[in-house]
Formats: sequence, C-alpha cells, structure tokens
Amino acid sequence: LKLGEAGEFGLIERIRRLVDAESEDIVLGIGDDAAVFRPVQDHLAVITTDAMIEGVHFNLDYTPIESLGWKALAINISDVAAMGGIPRYAVISLAVPEKWSVEDVESLYRGVSGCGKEYNCIIIGGDTVRSRSDCFISVTVVGEVEKDAFVRRSGALAGDFLCVTGPLGRSRTGLEVLKAKKNGPDFPRSVKRFLEPRPLVQEARRLIRELGVTSMIDISDGLASEIHHICHESKLGCIVREENIPISEETIRWTEEKHVPPVQFVLQSGEEYELLFTAEKSRIDKWRNRKNNDWDIIPIGEMVPENEGVLMDRDGKRCRIPPNGWDHFRV
Amino acid sequence: LKLGEAGEFGLIERIRRLVDAESEDIVLGIGDDAAVFRPVQDHLAVITTDAMIEGVHFNLDYTPIESLGWKALAINISDVAAMGGIPRYAVISLAVPEKWSVEDVESLYRGVSGCGKEYNCIIIGGDTVRSRSDCFISVTVVGEVEKDAFVRRSGALAGDFLCVTGPLGRSRTGLEVLKAKKNGPDFPRSVKRFLEPRPLVQEARRLIRELGVTSMIDISDGLASEIHHICHESKLGCIVREENIPISEETIRWTEEKHVPPVQFVLQSGEEYELLFTAEKSRIDKWRNRKNNDWDIIPIGEMVPENEGVLMDRDGKRCRIPPNGWDHFRV
Repeated sequence: LKLGEAGEFGLIERIRRLVDAESEDIVLGIGDDAAVFRPVQDHLAVITTDAMIEGVHFNLDYTPIESLGWKALAINISDVAAMGGIPRYAVISLAVPEKWSVEDVESLYRGVSGCGKEYNCIIIGGDTVRSRSDCFISVTVVGEVEKDAFVRRSGALAGDFLCVTGPLGRSRTGLEVLKAKKNGPDFPRSVKRFLEPRPLVQEARRLIRELGVTSMIDISDGLASEIHHICHESKLGCIVREENIPISEETIRWTEEKHVPPVQFVLQSGEEYELLFTAEKSRIDKWRNRKNNDWDIIPIGEMVPENEGVLMDRDGKRCRIPPNGWDHFRV
Repeated sequence: LKLGEAGEFGLIERIRRLVDAESEDIVLGIGDDAAVFRPVQDHLAVITTDAMIEGVHFNLDYTPIESLGWKALAINISDVAAMGGIPRYAVISLAVPEKWSVEDVESLYRGVSGCGKEYNCIIIGGDTVRSRSDCFISVTVVGEVEKDAFVRRSGALAGDFLCVTGPLGRSRTGLEVLKAKKNGPDFPRSVKRFLEPRPLVQEARRLIRELGVTSMIDISDGLASEIHHICHESKLGCIVREENIPISEETIRWTEEKHVPPVQFVLQSGEEYELLFTAEKSRIDKWRNRKNNDWDIIPIGEMVPENEGVLMDRDGKRCRIPPNGWDHFRV
C-alpha cells in the first residue's frame, strides 16, 4: 500500500496499533495534540534526543528497516542508561520518502516497538511526515532517576580507574562486514551489535549502586572520543593501557583479515553502546576479586591530572590519543 | 565558517551559548548524555513532537532561517497550549546539509532561542548532525499541566458552541504572498503569522479557567481538518455557520485579488495556531456579554449528534465539510 493511499490519519491508526502499550502512569497516549503522563513523585526526569539520517547514519542497502527502528530507540535509551536513569516514554519523529510503502513504515515501528517492549519504554507520541528523498528519524526519550543517583561525565577523580563494560569493536566490525557484503554468519555478534544494539540500562544502575561510579558515558562515537569527553568534563587526563583494551574475538579475526591494527580500529568504533566509566580503584578491585562474579568489568586505565594529557601506554611507551573517534561533520 | 571546520563539538559550544538559560529546576543542561530536570510536584507532564522538513514544510527561498527556528519550536509549544499546558523544556534534533555555514546554524538557533525566551521554554538538549541534501528539524517540548486541568479533543458535548480565538486565513495568505514574491509589506500580519506564529499558551489556560472548555485543538492542519478531529474524537457532528467564520482583513483582500472563495481558502489554511474549542453555550454567551471585554472569542457553530454529520450552513443550505484541510501525504 502506498503512503498516499493510507493518508496521514490512516497511518497514525496503524502505528497506534503497533506501539500500543498500557501503563497506569499514562493519562493520555497517542492521538491528541500532546501526550500526558504522571511523573514519578520525588524522582528527577531525564530527557535526551538523537537523530538518524539516511546516507549519514544508516544505509538501507544493508540495514533492515525493522533494525533501523530498533536502533533509533535503543541509542536514546542508551543515553538515559548512561545517566543511571530508567527509560519510560518515547516520542518518534519520522520523515519518509514517498516511495516507502505503508508496510515499510510499519516495519520501522515494529522495530521501535520491539525495543520499547524490551526496555519498558512506551511510545506515547510522534509525528510522521514525508520527505523529498532521505529518511530521517529522530527519537526523544524521557526517563526518570532517583535524586542524586544520576551520574555525570564530569565527576571522575584523579586516581580513579577507567573501565569498560565489555569487549569492543563489534559495531564497526558488523558495519564493515555488512558493507563488504561478507558472510554475516561468520560475524553474528558483530552484525547483531551493529544492527540492534542493546543499551545497558540495568547494568548502569548496578554499577552506580555497587561501585559508586564517579563518571559515566555510553560509547556512541568511539572509545577515543568518549575518553576525551570524560577527561574534558572532569578536567583530568588519563593513561590507558593498550593491552587492557578488551577487543571482541570477531573484531580480532576481522582486523587480522584486513591487516588493520585492532586497537586503532576499536578506538574509532562508534555505536558500541558499552559503558565507559570511572570508579575508585579499591571498589573496582573488590568487585573483581569477588568469588562467583557473574559479570566482569574491565579497567583499561587510570585518571591522572589534566596536565599529563590523554595518553595510551604500550609497554611503557606513551602517545597521545586523538579525540576524533567519530565526528559527524568530518566523516 | 564551514560546518566541517567547526566540528561537532565546536558547534555544540556555539549553540550552548545561544540557548543558555537559567532555571532552578534544571539539574543538568546541554552537554552530557541527557539533560536532567525536576518535574513540578503534583503536576502532570505533557509531551509533544513535531518535525519540519525542507521542501515539504518549508522552503528556504522564502523562509529566513531564523524564522524557521522560531516556527519549529512555536508549533510544538502550540500543541502543549492546546492541552492547557505550560511549555517548560525543549530538545532539538537538527540535520543540515554540509553546504550550510556555522552562521546559518546559529541563525536557526537564534530563532529557536527567541521563541523559547518569549514562552519561558528552555532548550536543554539536542542533536546536530549533517544530512545529504535537505534540512530536517524536529523539536520535542515537555510541559506541565495541573491534574484534571488539561483538555482533550474528545470532551465536546452536543449543544456546545464551537469557537475560534481569532480571524483565520493569515498563515496561508502569508505563504502565498511569499511564494508569489508579492510585496510583503501589503500583508504584514499574514507574513508574520506564517513565518513566526505565536502560540496561545496563556490564552488557552484562560479559556479553560473562565469557560470550562470541553475540547480544544490548535489549528495546524486547517480549520476543516481540526473540526473533523474534534467531531471524530468526541463522537459528534457539528453545524458551522459560514457567515460566522472570522476571516482576516488581509485574507479577504488577497482572496479577492485571486478570485478565490475566502471561506474555502480559510478552511484549508494550515499553521494558523489559533485555537478551536468547544464550551457550553451559556458560558460563551456570558463571556461575550461582559462589559469591557478585552478579548473576543468567536462562536462559529454548534455541536450536534454524530449522525447529523459535519456540515456547513450557508443561509439555511447545508453541505458537508471535507476533512482534508491539509494532509501531509496528499499535498
């Protein structure tokens, strides 16, 4: 069915059916001038917005539309997670070229809805319009966080360990595998990570509770870029030990095949959605030394005074880490 | 200065300077993964999002970039107003072609910021990225409203008067004047209305307080379309008296010049941002009969049972009102 045949209001009805979800906190959902909800008493509200543009952030040659929908919501949930918040509601702004079918728009919303259900984030509003050529999707997520429980980028202290939540490189590996039309099944976790990243909402909250993390950010632009953000906002430097950077097994395989240095590759791998955070050394050690640990976090470096710089250490030799993991205006 | 030369992070700093505003309720503004604010206790939250796409919703040949910024925020504030809410915070998703300069982006944000200041709506976050060809701007506004003080589209009752807040037609007149490259100064209020509409936030709240309005909507897609929304959601019909539809003086002049029937013109004039609402007849009469009235609202028709239809009455002759004031997928 062509978009022009459904009309804007027919389309809204179809979307409403796809994203319909119940919550006693929603007073008024999709279909009026605005949505109305009851904020949780005594909590703070968290809000973030992120857009994805065809030809810049995604390419439909190798991105299924349903994955695009998932990802557009997931990257916003990840920003809420990086604050220590819980995502609650999302609104979706979608502009699609006229050549899209109603079924395409439904696929996209099926992805959005799938991600929303997984994370208890309810779609309560949106705007669906046409564009001349490219698809544009912008999502805003509103969440909540307990007072004084949220974490900024700016709270790191000299001496803190800098840690990541898991092996890196998958997202960029997945993108390159898809672009090269390589055999996806050889790199399943990478392709999955690139197409449908999984924000670490509960994990972030656990880190705050159990480790008292001092700063946190999600890895969306690449490890190098995020390290610089934490250093800049916390007015510190850091020394990262190259050998400690965890690299996914598939990324090691892929970079060997391509004869690319894996650490360089990982520093610039955006859209990982692992968390980068700082916490007191002693608390990290205690966590890592627990018996029967169900989840390992990986210290990759240490925060130092600002004038020491943002450095990579390889067997005692040090060099500066370039900040441009992923700069949208320089790609 | 070219966008590539400022880089994403240089640009964020420039934007931050333009939109900077203080509020004791903002815990964390622009610059982290998400913004954090304190919701007002015992109020409900209102949220809405609306996008504007180059070549579909605006054309930079006749739209100054600063006006575009104003309008992108204003249309969202108007949605909050139509619920009876007060706008508080906005996040802006902006995608611009690489040919734009940093100064262009600053102009846009100057417009956003001007509108925000006028309505006490603070920009607390955003995402600025590049696009391949067209400019996309999507805004989400979060506001607040007292419990049970908000107004749906669905509460109209048979017998209620259907009213508008002011003369219509200006926005479409302004658009056509600009498109025709006609002498703008002959139609100043129309051009102004089209480029920089003024949402009726305090006016909406006054209507709720003083008239107990039963349903309300802002006129964004055209009078015909909005009448149908209120009828559909309230499960009613209505009879509109053609002679009662208020038409702006400039619109009368413009439609005379173009030999177009003015009422037809007004029914399809979108982006007016006047309010369309229903209230009990007796309360409307009382309001209109007050001495020294500082603001006149205009009853244009009456709500009737659904099976009577959505009709226009001209000297006792009745015809159906077509719903398509402005359908984005049919333009």
